[in-house]
Amino acid sequence: MSRTSTRILILGGGFAGVFTAKALRRLARRHADVPVEIELVSDRNYFVFQPLLPEVAAGTINAQDAVTPLRLLLKDVKVRMGEVRHIDFAQQTVELAQGSKRIPQHRPYDHLVLALGQRTMLERFPGFAEHSFCMRDLAHAHALRNHVLQCLEHADVTENPALKQSLLTFVVAGAGFSGVEIAGELHEMLERALPMYPAIKAAEIRTLLVQRGQRILPELPEKLGDYAAQKLSARGVTVMYGTSLARATADAVYTQDGRQINTRTLITTVGNGPTRLVEDLGLTLERGRILTTPAMQVAGHERLWALGDCAYVPLGEGCAPTTAQFAVAQANTLAANLFLKLRQLEPRAFDYQPRGTMASIGHYRAVAEVFGARLSGLSAWLLWRAFYIGMLPGFATRLRVALNWFFDYFLPRSIVQVKTTSEPAARVVHYAAGDVLFAPGQIVDGFYTVIRGSLESRVPNAGTPQHAPSENGPQPAAAEGEHFVRILGPGDHWGERSLSEGTHTMGWLTAVDDCEVLVLQRSDFVKLRQGLPPLRDYLDRIPEKIYPPALRSPRTRPAPDHNN
Amino acid sequence: MSRTSTRILILGGGFAGVFTAKALRRLARRHADVPVEIELVSDRNYFVFQPLLPEVAAGTINAQDAVTPLRLLLKDVKVRMGEVRHIDFAQQTVELAQGSKRIPQHRPYDHLVLALGQRTMLERFPGFAEHSFCMRDLAHAHALRNHVLQCLEHADVTENPALKQSLLTFVVAGAGFSGVEIAGELHEMLERALPMYPAIKAAEIRTLLVQRGQRILPELPEKLGDYAAQKLSARGVTVMYGTSLARATADAVYTQDGRQINTRTLITTVGNGPTRLVEDLGLTLERGRILTTPAMQVAGHERLWALGDCAYVPLGEGCAPTTAQFAVAQANTLAANLFLKLRQLEPRAFDYQPRGTMASIGHYRAVAEVFGARLSGLSAWLLWRAFYIGMLPGFATRLRVALNWFFDYFLPRSIVQVKTTSEPAARVVHYAAGDVLFAPGQIVDGFYTVIRGSLESRVPNAGTPQHAPSENGPQPAAAEGEHFVRILGPGDHWGERSLSEGTHTMGWLTAVDDCEVLVLQRSDFVKLRQGLPPLRDYLDRIPEKIYPPALRSPRTRPAPDHNN
Repeated sequence: MSRTSTRILILGGGFAGVFTAKALRRLARRHADVPVEIELVSDRNYFVFQPLLPEVAAGTINAQDAVTPLRLLLKDVKVRMGEVRHIDFAQQTVELAQGSKRIPQHRPYDHLVLALGQRTMLERFPGFAEHSFCMRDLAHAHALRNHVLQCLEHADVTENPALKQSLLTFVVAGAGFSGVEIAGELHEMLERALPMYPAIKAAEIRTLLVQRGQRILPELPEKLGDYAAQKLSARGVTVMYGTSLARATADAVYTQDGRQINTRTLITTVGNGPTRLVEDLGLTLERGRILTTPAMQVAGHERLWALGDCAYVPLGEGCAPTTAQFAVAQANTLAANLFLKLRQLEPRAFDYQPRGTMASIGHYRAVAEVFGARLSGLSAWLLWRAFYIGMLPGFATRLRVALNWFFDYFLPRSIVQVKTTSEPAARVVHYAAGDVLFAPGQIVDGFYTVIRGSLESRVPNAGTPQHAPSENGPQPAAAEGEHFVRILGPGDHWGERSLSEGTHTMGWLTAVDDCEVLVLQRSDFVKLRQGLPPLRDYLDRIPEKIYPPALRSPRTRPAPDHNN
Repeated sequence: MSRTSTRILILGGGFAGVFTAKALRRLARRHADVPVEIELVSDRNYFVFQPLLPEVAAGTINAQDAVTPLRLLLKDVKVRMGEVRHIDFAQQTVELAQGSKRIPQHRPYDHLVLALGQRTMLERFPGFAEHSFCMRDLAHAHALRNHVLQCLEHADVTENPALKQSLLTFVVAGAGFSGVEIAGELHEMLERALPMYPAIKAAEIRTLLVQRGQRILPELPEKLGDYAAQKLSARGVTVMYGTSLARATADAVYTQDGRQINTRTLITTVGNGPTRLVEDLGLTLERGRILTTPAMQVAGHERLWALGDCAYVPLGEGCAPTTAQFAVAQANTLAANLFLKLRQLEPRAFDYQPRGTMASIGHYRAVAEVFGARLSGLSAWLLWRAFYIGMLPGFATRLRVALNWFFDYFLPRSIVQVKTTSEPAARVVHYAAGDVLFAPGQIVDGFYTVIRGSLESRVPNAGTPQHAPSENGPQPAAAEGEHFVRILGPGDHWGERSLSEGTHTMGWLTAVDDCEVLVLQRSDFVKLRQGLPPLRDYLDRIPEKIYPPALRSPRTRPAPDHNN
């Protein structure tokens, strides 16, 4: 294509971006007199059909059946994998980091389409960012799946009843489409996995769906919501109405009305907000979304368009809802408007009548409202699947996906836990007052630094504890005789000696009040200690400063690290 | 089962461990008068069919078709997921870390079977541990696949020819079974992915197979090795005979005879050695493996057995080879011997005639020698697949796997890059003398501390560089006028200012000699800087100590981080 063609750059590879590219492509073929170059930038090289992610997490379908490579979906569109760092509206360039992400690239454009989606904003809920799972991308589905399988494996062998109960409690926050689908699919996965875990009884599993309002699926007519609620309850999912979660720690979640639920698994489907990039663009935001004209242009920017979840597109009295269906409808209008504009014609306002809505609730059941008719059960579920299969590119792909779904009905569900996600080296962990972080004889997994609140370290002066450690919680501190007690405030740290000397813990570490702790993983601590001289020097001076002489000698029993 | 039964504990969930458990289970049913409890401990909850990992990496098959949950494979055996930390032979207990890995568990045994496998030992080759991929577990296959797709995505959009060549060069070290299969599958994957990457020509892709000896597949008869070599060459894989690799950096590998090959991808199939646990057990090792009697007991330990890759089992003049086939044969003999022993009878020496060997070379071709007959091409490939399908549990699973393979023939190969593996926070990177780590205007991705060797930092005194950064390598340093030059030795670090102030690089960072550098990722650096007061204080004092006044002021252009 010659340089006289108009360069259209689309940022984002979700429903909004992909369907805009497809629609532009179609129009470009029709209007050969208006030459355009279309380029789409995405930070992942595939399109993810988000509504299917709960099924990937549950193992109903293979990951690859919920995603399609962008390059396959957009055959005549230039696809560029990169991360958008900055947009210069005056220069009409976008700064990208691609590949090893070190060298910034600058892409010029004539028209720019923002289809940047939203992010999950959990800052309002203490502990959520660190201790909850979300469901936006394939990686999230994998992470949740592996975590749940880890809980089952551990619950099957532990002899501590309280730990077992906590491992088998699964909490989903929010009962909109996403929350209901996750709770339904997760519960089905747990039920189907049970035959493999002889020590876990079905009655021991608790799936809780926490909903602020008095009904689930508020997006659907009340009757369908009630049907879904009834089906979920019958299968063992407990819906907690009229409450919401206030905060989370590593071991529990707390409701607004003060109830504590011990769990290792919180999945959140609430808290959408603008991405950092959208926040930094300096455009007018309305409820965290980019305000557009009814024709989806950004006011004051002649060559800038926005659609999908990141955009506030006026519609009727309010704005278009942030669903995939509306994103696709907007994509078609936006592409048409862009061509109208290129041909010096007037763009039209976005208008759309939704065709219907569907929610899968697991176990081959769904609820749907299509063209005014209501469906529930297997028929709705089949419709839901047929709709997705229709979207896939190519007959053979459709057949393969359909067959995989068919086989899922007959085959035992796989419980393979693939640990591809490594823990981040440094993570922030929340603890509630009274939480026991460590008891004597345990393995120290990292270097703990207090950020907020305080911890108490209590070590018996006698040295090594008398009895073997047990999984049934810590021994009472008073029983051990004399103790060396130290209170750790912000900036104080714990674990450096056990990590350096390879020993088990000698005493207790408990949270005095609610606190935030920075945990640096064992292996990274060792690397940093060796590599960063100031850190090493500082740590080497600690024993003399903090511990009484009796506690300074090396320990008797090494705890080797066989991680490899 | 009553406590009078004998507790047999198997450590390891590979071929050796799984087939020992299966054989013991069979014998236990036959000899009801000898009650046994069988428990298998593995650090993953699935059995991985290692020979198929190259195909997982290549996307020929789904990950879940190369693995089977241990609990499904071993239905009447207790499976415990945990990491073995220590064995107390006197007390007859094994110390495990399970679940969150903090609370050590102690499992007692009457007989202990060591099936611990080997690990890839890359310490002998500088840079290999940090810059090469191996192929032992599912996570390795995923990591390689994602990396290769990242190279293709980057190569498709870069405008720097040298970078493109390096991104499209793939080096496999070692041409035994594993190396040949990886090279063959990888090359097929690259060829099939090309239609999706319009800017990459087939001729630009180089797959190199580096072999110390003068032929590939030395385990097979020469004729079959020659056939495989000829097929690989015809398809574009280059075999480099009579040489081996000496070291690797982030950007290149170096052969023993001094040649430099610029590449981002090194896959190594050499360097097997004992796991850390095996090293620490204090048992007699022969060539890094646990020396056993011909009956597979460990001399001097009445209740200790070993088999598979971790064991040196005498056979004929030498010892049994470390292949899956021998591990399965040993498992059957070991289980029989254990029952002979429980019934006060004499165990028998291990003896086995191998039935044949097979290697897949990609593109529906394989080579095989079975019962003395030689096969090659499609027939050998089908035999190889039939053998695997026969191992799978249940008819439906077999049918699904067979159908997936069948579809692979017709469908475009998926190129979805799932970034589930996050980079480790702190990693050691090797650079060769002259390597340019950073040029002006780049994005700083981490905090760099020199461990060995030295780096040169060169910053123009004028301030911000005049021209926009380009991917075509760094500008010559001298052209910029006056420079502030600093040599960084072990313990010195770089990047803290750009990271803290969010700016692009101002100058060059180059390796003066061969060096090792500890890189702490950007996001972890930020967290640690905030959380660790000694580190923060130290870093805050740096500008006054190191930089001349002109370079101390804050930079003009922020480089925001939109990772989320």
